[in-house]
Amino acid sequence: MDKKLKDFQPNETLDIPVLIKSADVRTAQDSSSYIALVFTDSSGEITGKLWHASQQAIRDFTTGTVIQLTGKRETYQDRPQIRIRHMQVLPSADQDPHAYTPVAPTSREALTEFVEQTIAGIQEPTWQAIVRWIFKAHWDAFFTYPAAKTNHHAYEGGLAYHTVSMVKLAQKIAPLYDAVDPDLLISGALLHDMGKTRELTGPIATQYRAEGNLIGHVVMIDEEIVRACDALAIDSHSEAVILLRHMVLSHHGRLEFGAPVLPQLLEAELLHQIDQMDASLTMITNALADTKPGDYSERVFGLDNRRFYQRRPLD
Amino acid sequence: MDKKLKDFQPNETLDIPVLIKSADVRTAQDSSSYIALVFTDSSGEITGKLWHASQQAIRDFTTGTVIQLTGKRETYQDRPQIRIRHMQVLPSADQDPHAYTPVAPTSREALTEFVEQTIAGIQEPTWQAIVRWIFKAHWDAFFTYPAAKTNHHAYEGGLAYHTVSMVKLAQKIAPLYDAVDPDLLISGALLHDMGKTRELTGPIATQYRAEGNLIGHVVMIDEEIVRACDALAIDSHSEAVILLRHMVLSHHGRLEFGAPVLPQLLEAELLHQIDQMDASLTMITNALADTKPGDYSERVFGLDNRRFYQRRPLD
Amino acid sequence: MDKKLKDFQPNETLDIPVLIKSADVRTAQDSSSYIALVFTDSSGEITGKLWHASQQAIRDFTTGTVIQLTGKRETYQDRPQIRIRHMQVLPSADQDPHAYTPVAPTSREALTEFVEQTIAGIQEPTWQAIVRWIFKAHWDAFFTYPAAKTNHHAYEGGLAYHTVSMVKLAQKIAPLYDAVDPDLLISGALLHDMGKTRELTGPIATQYRAEGNLIGHVVMIDEEIVRACDALAIDSHSEAVILLRHMVLSHHGRLEFGAPVLPQLLEAELLHQIDQMDASLTMITNALADTKPGDYSERVFGLDNRRFYQRRPLD
Amino acid sequence: MDKKLKDFQPNETLDIPVLIKSADVRTAQDSSSYIALVFTDSSGEITGKLWHASQQAIRDFTTGTVIQLTGKRETYQDRPQIRIRHMQVLPSADQDPHAYTPVAPTSREALTEFVEQTIAGIQEPTWQAIVRWIFKAHWDAFFTYPAAKTNHHAYEGGLAYHTVSMVKLAQKIAPLYDAVDPDLLISGALLHDMGKTRELTGPIATQYRAEGNLIGHVVMIDEEIVRACDALAIDSHSEAVILLRHMVLSHHGRLEFGAPVLPQLLEAELLHQIDQMDASLTMITNALADTKPGDYSERVFGLDNRRFYQRRPLD
Amino acid sequence: MDKKLKDFQPNETLDIPVLIKSADVRTAQDSSSYIALVFTDSSGEITGKLWHASQQAIRDFTTGTVIQLTGKRETYQDRPQIRIRHMQVLPSADQDPHAYTPVAPTSREALTEFVEQTIAGIQEPTWQAIVRWIFKAHWDAFFTYPAAKTNHHAYEGGLAYHTVSMVKLAQKIAPLYDAVDPDLLISGALLHDMGKTRELTGPIATQYRAEGNLIGHVVMIDEEIVRACDALAIDSHSEAVILLRHMVLSHHGRLEFGAPVLPQLLEAELLHQIDQMDASLTMITNALADTKPGDYSERVFGLDNRRFYQRRPLD
Amino acid sequence: MDKKLKDFQPNETLDIPVLIKSADVRTAQDSSSYIALVFTDSSGEITGKLWHASQQAIRDFTTGTVIQLTGKRETYQDRPQIRIRHMQVLPSADQDPHAYTPVAPTSREALTEFVEQTIAGIQEPTWQAIVRWIFKAHWDAFFTYPAAKTNHHAYEGGLAYHTVSMVKLAQKIAPLYDAVDPDLLISGALLHDMGKTRELTGPIATQYRAEGNLIGHVVMIDEEIVRACDALAIDSHSEAVILLRHMVLSHHGRLEFGAPVLPQLLEAELLHQIDQMDASLTMITNALADTKPGDYSERVFGLDNRRFYQRRPLD
Repeated sequence: MDKKLKDFQPNETLDIPVLIKSADVRTAQDSSSYIALVFTDSSGEITGKLWHASQQAIRDFTTGTVIQLTGKRETYQDRPQIRIRHMQVLPSADQDPHAYTPVAPTSREALTEFVEQTIAGIQEPTWQAIVRWIFKAHWDAFFTYPAAKTNHHAYEGGLAYHTVSMVKLAQKIAPLYDAVDPDLLISGALLHDMGKTRELTGPIATQYRAEGNLIGHVVMIDEEIVRACDALAIDSHSEAVILLRHMVLSHHGRLEFGAPVLPQLLEAELLHQIDQMDASLTMITNALADTKPGDYSERVFGLDNRRFYQRRPLD
Repeated sequence: MDKKLKDFQPNETLDIPVLIKSADVRTAQDSSSYIALVFTDSSGEITGKLWHASQQAIRDFTTGTVIQLTGKRETYQDRPQIRIRHMQVLPSADQDPHAYTPVAPTSREALTEFVEQTIAGIQEPTWQAIVRWIFKAHWDAFFTYPAAKTNHHAYEGGLAYHTVSMVKLAQKIAPLYDAVDPDLLISGALLHDMGKTRELTGPIATQYRAEGNLIGHVVMIDEEIVRACDALAIDSHSEAVILLRHMVLSHHGRLEFGAPVLPQLLEAELLHQIDQMDASLTMITNALADTKPGDYSERVFGLDNRRFYQRRPLD
Repeated sequence: MDKKLKDFQPNETLDIPVLIKSADVRTAQDSSSYIALVFTDSSGEITGKLWHASQQAIRDFTTGTVIQLTGKRETYQDRPQIRIRHMQVLPSADQDPHAYTPVAPTSREALTEFVEQTIAGIQEPTWQAIVRWIFKAHWDAFFTYPAAKTNHHAYEGGLAYHTVSMVKLAQKIAPLYDAVDPDLLISGALLHDMGKTRELTGPIATQYRAEGNLIGHVVMIDEEIVRACDALAIDSHSEAVILLRHMVLSHHGRLEFGAPVLPQLLEAELLHQIDQMDASLTMITNALADTKPGDYSERVFGLDNRRFYQRRPLD
Repeated sequence: MDKKLKDFQPNETLDIPVLIKSADVRTAQDSSSYIALVFTDSSGEITGKLWHASQQAIRDFTTGTVIQLTGKRETYQDRPQIRIRHMQVLPSADQDPHAYTPVAPTSREALTEFVEQTIAGIQEPTWQAIVRWIFKAHWDAFFTYPAAKTNHHAYEGGLAYHTVSMVKLAQKIAPLYDAVDPDLLISGALLHDMGKTRELTGPIATQYRAEGNLIGHVVMIDEEIVRACDALAIDSHSEAVILLRHMVLSHHGRLEFGAPVLPQLLEAELLHQIDQMDASLTMITNALADTKPGDYSERVFGLDNRRFYQRRPLD
Repeated sequence: MDKKLKDFQPNETLDIPVLIKSADVRTAQDSSSYIALVFTDSSGEITGKLWHASQQAIRDFTTGTVIQLTGKRETYQDRPQIRIRHMQVLPSADQDPHAYTPVAPTSREALTEFVEQTIAGIQEPTWQAIVRWIFKAHWDAFFTYPAAKTNHHAYEGGLAYHTVSMVKLAQKIAPLYDAVDPDLLISGALLHDMGKTRELTGPIATQYRAEGNLIGHVVMIDEEIVRACDALAIDSHSEAVILLRHMVLSHHGRLEFGAPVLPQLLEAELLHQIDQMDASLTMITNALADTKPGDYSERVFGLDNRRFYQRRPLD
Repeated sequence: MDKKLKDFQPNETLDIPVLIKSADVRTAQDSSSYIALVFTDSSGEITGKLWHASQQAIRDFTTGTVIQLTGKRETYQDRPQIRIRHMQVLPSADQDPHAYTPVAPTSREALTEFVEQTIAGIQEPTWQAIVRWIFKAHWDAFFTYPAAKTNHHAYEGGLAYHTVSMVKLAQKIAPLYDAVDPDLLISGALLHDMGKTRELTGPIATQYRAEGNLIGHVVMIDEEIVRACDALAIDSHSEAVILLRHMVLSHHGRLEFGAPVLPQLLEAELLHQIDQMDASLTMITNALADTKPGDYSERVFGLDNRRFYQRRPLD
């Protein structure tokens, strides 16, 4: 297999196709222009700077362009960066950004099949109907959007991957506690972050939309449930709908995390904890991926800026 | 004018009609039953206990009943209470609970006229249409519900009175700052607490409904706006609607107060401050109403348990 | 099956054997003595008061005594209490306190077998040796102590039941995340609360020992690991031991919860979350056990004083 | 009208007189000296750097000097900066720093007249006498000092402008609430920040004085009231004086904001809220002044680092 | 020596003179009147209730009266109380309240001499002059007032005792650190709480005065320093005075404890820590005074509600 | 005496031997390599950068090397730095790092004698035996390790110096309070930070060891006491040992500072306060050492980022 961007060692030269994930034109201290670039392929991303950028270069090397990159991997202030030797825009036949972005570690086919089976397995007819209606309306976005702009599952397909991971946790944990209604827990897990498909701008190089900031994905998914009820002629004030709406409205778990109401159902508290569990384990695993045995990871912003220890082999 | 419940001095005897606001049957230390009562009329409320209550008394003296109360106002643990001598259920012709509850200090007619004129004065057509549609759907509840279960404006008609007070503040403050859009501010003020008509159970002896706890009035009014758009064929993702939804969603001002999003518009921050201003001034005024010059009020729960000072006459 | 203490309805008379869980002699307002009692059997506990208690009664009805209780279940200030008609100390043949205390919902045999198999299943030899040594030293206490004085699993055998529940969660969750070392997670889960056997006074009517307050169970289990190393000639500064000690030292998850260090291993963070998950689900389930459909539970102290909703049947 | 500093677009060349607001000599990475400059005129301020600064340049281009600036407006790290081509000290006849600083949006004459009328309108004689005495002693400073070093109203005359804005709010709000004493509220508003004239160093390029940090403007204005009483033979322990002192001592509203006592008067709580309202609206308006429709402002430090949304035109 | 109030054991009868520290007339559940009394003598205080109090009793047994008390010490809800058999007002010749209040454990003569020598020992002339002037103005109050209404040193003379304890700490600690100016530290310690003589109502049965709540003792002592400067023709803006004012203004150490400014001098931080040290040690010692070896004290409100352990004898 | 590193004024040239405290090789913006250096000698430390570093330079100028440094002291971004002209590794005869590091202001001999006498003065035999055993095991480390990596006493011998300062405070304060057991307080002070000898890597250029992060020095010293008991055949559950363990376990004073238990003994609370007192006074004194009269120090991280004022001479 061809070597990818993050496979190269410090001081190793590279000559590979990559996607420009972002390109900011800035002014250097000597008042010339340079471009601050983020390169990416399926292995991850590294920054680089194109010094003394010509007007032509500024026009060519824009966000979303696939280029052939020649240079060397170096280290600047403890982080990797590419010392650029040459950049060449690839012919349009090779301009497939999706081929150069990290993707969920499970195939879309596998995720799709899992989601279809999970929805079909919901016994409570109201919840199944609502979940099915919302998934139908957001099907493609659900499988392509990231779960967040940064922090965790911030890649194409991350929303589906995170959701499926949570459903799997739910399926394992629910049977251990008689009082837990698996239907309610799994329906909540499937829907909880679906508002992200309207809060964010898209699958790649995603940003928060103004509407996303002003309304928030928590309320947006609640709105979807209300619309689903209207479309399906379900009473939106029935016990079943109120319970489901409470699941998504309270899933951030604390008011200071943006939940308009605190979890007041056994399943709502559990959904919040499952969400945190999958997010935490993912963030720690990512942080440790770049850490050598015996060292500490970078600080993890989403976990109180803690650093995590990469253990050494046991004797 | 006849003397009301709170007009009597300590140790003064009374013989007046009052409403039983609540009646809890409890067991005394000697294992007999007694009823813990809250009496109310338009002047306010005082508690009392009916010792050694018979089964007949327990059946007669229930919440919502108007009775003739004979007794004496006394003081128990620094609070007023009625030492009951006799209680007599009044004939059904006199059973009008509304006549015995505190009401808003402005007449419903005056409030109605003010609200109608305010709605008619909204220049922006989308906001006027939405406000008008929602008020029409909740007209009677708006003018009869309290603004809260306790704390402030917790009386019949309190929701309308609090809303109108906020609109008046908005009308005075907006002209002082060029950047403020009075239409947006006033539309937000009119709608901000309308979800209370579904969060609470009714105008008198109000409680939180289960649905009220699980969804919350902040999300409920947002849902109303969305439904208004659907009914009026307004695009719920248009700039105008997003701005209005943001006003009501952020009006609690802080995440820890249950706002799903923080105020991100000049008018949204101002709406939150106007809400707090009217609530604070009302709570302090109420607390000082029972405080003698030179003394301190009871602690005000909604204001960090602070006590307020009743000033003495200046020389 | 005979009716138990909590099976009786309000105002129903009872005549059953119960254990006196605590008995405080106090002075009434009329200066006579009374005994404030907590009665318990395997169904739970209810309070009662013996008024005008004689010196004989004070000598007879002490903590830990099994009596025949005749009386009526009543309600005082929204909580159940027994109106005592008669109390009679049972003959010494019937003085078996264990027969009248709530016990873990799984048999000791089942728990024992599960623990033995789990220990045998630890692959890493150092961890298995340490876990085995500590369990051997605390075998009986582990299966009889409660997991806490109040809050959750506060009954005889609660420590084993809580520990086994956590191990089961660990066994289900670990396979979903490649990066998790199940051996470390399960070893930590088995040991994490073992210090309670020295922090608390015993299986029944447990209290914190002075030593328990001054040292704390977190440090006490760490001390046990160090002693196990000394006994087994294992280097207590080896990587394997440091990892295991970190698991127990950090399992409270936050400094303000009494963890001397924050979790810095993937498995340590997960252990903390599993501990919280089992505790939360147990506390909520207990709170809802006494709550009617459509009502809210009592406030749950260990979960930010939240109340939880008992759902109604869906149509 | 001549173009001002902030009127130029990115990449536009400029040749205008400006004031050097601050000038720090620093060492570049190549060990040469450069001057980090802040230029200002009545339109606002922009930074710039003079590279390879000679000893002569370091002597010439100091804080408070008016120069002719030739250069180009560029963008560096998302903020505007001037690429300097030439700087020339203007002849002493043109050295009028006041001509190049932002000033309050209302003329000093208008502010003066408003303040005089407001003081004359205070009915309570003790308060009027104290306010008049203090204003007389600080007359010129009151109309020239800023209200703060940064955050809001941080320009020459800002103190008077902020104070007048608060008085106007007070005049509008007080009549809406019967319980509010407008005299006390307005007297408090007039005095509340007067201690700034001793806490800060002066109207231009203001800093905190050591005395300002060690005593604080809250205590300093209280000291002024005490001295006014001594000068006017008013009993500083009379009810009227205690009330006025409490207004200024509590106006920061919370202990953690540096109030030595919490507001305990209706008017004191309201004064605090009016202060926050004017400060918030000013900060948000300033932040939005540089923001394009549909974009978010820079983070506003004084408002929890929130960003505010610049709305787009409605259809 | 005669037995004092707190020398009697539970269930022991007593017949001794005591002072009525407070007397509240209340209504019993059977609607008769009773008096809730606090008795005190130099050994401490105990509560009691006079049931079925006649109008004569209500007139006789008022706060500040010395009576002959006959009764029995009992225990009610874990606290001691007196079961009253008889109360008799003592003749006016015996009405000396000071004889029945706890006093500082050091004689006023010793405290006076220590304070005089300490003031004389201040080398810096400005500080000595100011301290001397303020002590002269408050001499008697300083030696009779308590240091607080509750918590610690809440007895006649407590202010002087607490102040002297802090000066002794200062005298011991200052020589260990070269950078500490003992003159500044000791001058600050002498003055720091002097504002209490105006914040509180008097030496016995002290309360907060309205002025005390509205201004606070921290600002009150600052005001005294300013007045001392005016009287002594010292420039109140000189470095020496600013330093001394900062010492008293910052001595609460944190904004949330009511300090208008944080400590910004080495000596100011140290003064705050010495204040806390003396207060903490006193509160803990008091709490342990009633605690048996091996037991835990009551919770100490001023120390995060912690309980403290009374150690057992070592072998 | 020869001039040391921090004796040189800005722009003064220097030619002195110094120790390289740290040396990080980085890539400049022009992609050449440079070394970011920290130089130190007994007077303190200053940074410098070696631009365009050759491979030979990178090999030569490593952490722990003593060099002859020629250059000039300059100022970069308000901090001193050395503009390097030449660097020369000194011959191995001059390679004595200890000669170039700051040391405790008291000689090791004096500290040693003080510690020996203090240990000998402990009257309680169990505590003396344990303290003696632990000091014997860590004797050399105790006198050479720093007390911390940064903040305060972060130099060779700092642990002993900080410990001795605390013992001196304890010896002065204990006699002022009868209730304090000086033996327990002094034993706790001697041991409290001894775990640092295992938490940190060594006396010079110290770092936290992985074991130090995962276990923490608070638990490490507790472990030492347990081992001492085992070695000395002392019952580790005796009252005397529990008290001593509690002293070290609670000395951080608050859970959020990493104490697994809160102080529950009078002496434990006092030990915590003495620790804070010595740390605070040392941090403030250090911060003021570089501050000119009338100026404010840098912000002190360990004291809420406060700045401290360097007072001017009094007239």
